[in-house]
Amino acid sequence: MIIDVSASDVVAVYRALVGVVAPRPIAWVSTLDGEGRVNLAPFSFFNAFGANPPVVAFSPTLRRDGSKKDTLLNLEVIPEFVLNAAVEELADQVNATATELPRGQSEAEYAGLTLKRSTRVRPPRVSESPVHLECRVRQIMPIGTGPIAANLVIGEVLLIHIEDGVLDSQGQIDPRKLRTIARLGGNYYCRSTDLFEMERPQKKDEG
Amino acid sequence: MIIDVSASDVVAVYRALVGVVAPRPIAWVSTLDGEGRVNLAPFSFFNAFGANPPVVAFSPTLRRDGSKKDTLLNLEVIPEFVLNAAVEELADQVNATATELPRGQSEAEYAGLTLKRSTRVRPPRVSESPVHLECRVRQIMPIGTGPIAANLVIGEVLLIHIEDGVLDSQGQIDPRKLRTIARLGGNYYCRSTDLFEMERPQKKDEG
Repeated sequence: MIIDVSASDVVAVYRALVGVVAPRPIAWVSTLDGEGRVNLAPFSFFNAFGANPPVVAFSPTLRRDGSKKDTLLNLEVIPEFVLNAAVEELADQVNATATELPRGQSEAEYAGLTLKRSTRVRPPRVSESPVHLECRVRQIMPIGTGPIAANLVIGEVLLIHIEDGVLDSQGQIDPRKLRTIARLGGNYYCRSTDLFEMERPQKKDEG
Repeated sequence: MIIDVSASDVVAVYRALVGVVAPRPIAWVSTLDGEGRVNLAPFSFFNAFGANPPVVAFSPTLRRDGSKKDTLLNLEVIPEFVLNAAVEELADQVNATATELPRGQSEAEYAGLTLKRSTRVRPPRVSESPVHLECRVRQIMPIGTGPIAANLVIGEVLLIHIEDGVLDSQGQIDPRKLRTIARLGGNYYCRSTDLFEMERPQKKDEG
């Protein structure tokens, strides 16, 4: 099958893209609106991009009707956010926070989650999640227009909280303890349980 | 554990970041240098970000010595690339193409892979991979400086090739047939085999 983007429907392109670019990590993002009300929502167009400084980016795409999601509206007013680790035991809650509630109503409360103060940023953290990345927005970059158009939110990580229970004996995150979930196409999610190791090959200076 | 980025070593921040933001999909990128020589390399700082137009971004970070990787150097000259699906049966080859060969030497050949012509872009595709996204660079955005600093390569997808063997009966990509691999922290990779489904909740117009 060949999908020529210029001759294809946006939804068809979207479906192929989320099927191929997978599994995608989940940004479970808490933000604040101008009145101090918390929004919490998951986004799978997300990754880290570098470490010096630590840069993350996620994309609250425009809705099917072309409007902006609450997370994006909030970041335009209060350019700070927290990334809460989306782990297996919180899968139902992650999904519940994808519900589009009326603006200003708390998805955290709706999903039965509790919040606690952050250290460097104003939006709070999800208490039940074992890892939090406190971030500041560097730039918001819209790319394209209309349904499912990208809005790249590029953020800088200021502080990382990690519960000791997800660390290994060397103080590194143990993926078997953290057990993040990731997004694939359709309604599919993936557990990070079927792991294997490959050592990065050595540099070959000779042909 | 708390990692205050401003007071921490870059490598420590990097290790925490790749442990938390996981599993990460793999951009297995083919590019060309100015002399027409092919480079093929995997990058896990990668995702899609929107569909209108279809936008992908990946980051060839600066090396530990602060220098640019061949993929980035190539894209500065020929701003086109192909994303080849990194699937389970090609895991060893994906890893082999992470070897730093002398500039201009082919990682594809080194890994025993064959290449075929693309349709819209100059860099070729990996024949053995079941899906190819032919892409044009929109922008290259360096963020930060020094070891592991980000270089966001933002690309637009022009054409998608999908082998029929990875599709389901509705013509959508079947994750159980495609079987992409993803990257976690340390030397860990994840197979996309331990799947589950959750339906996106309906909009709640009433509280």
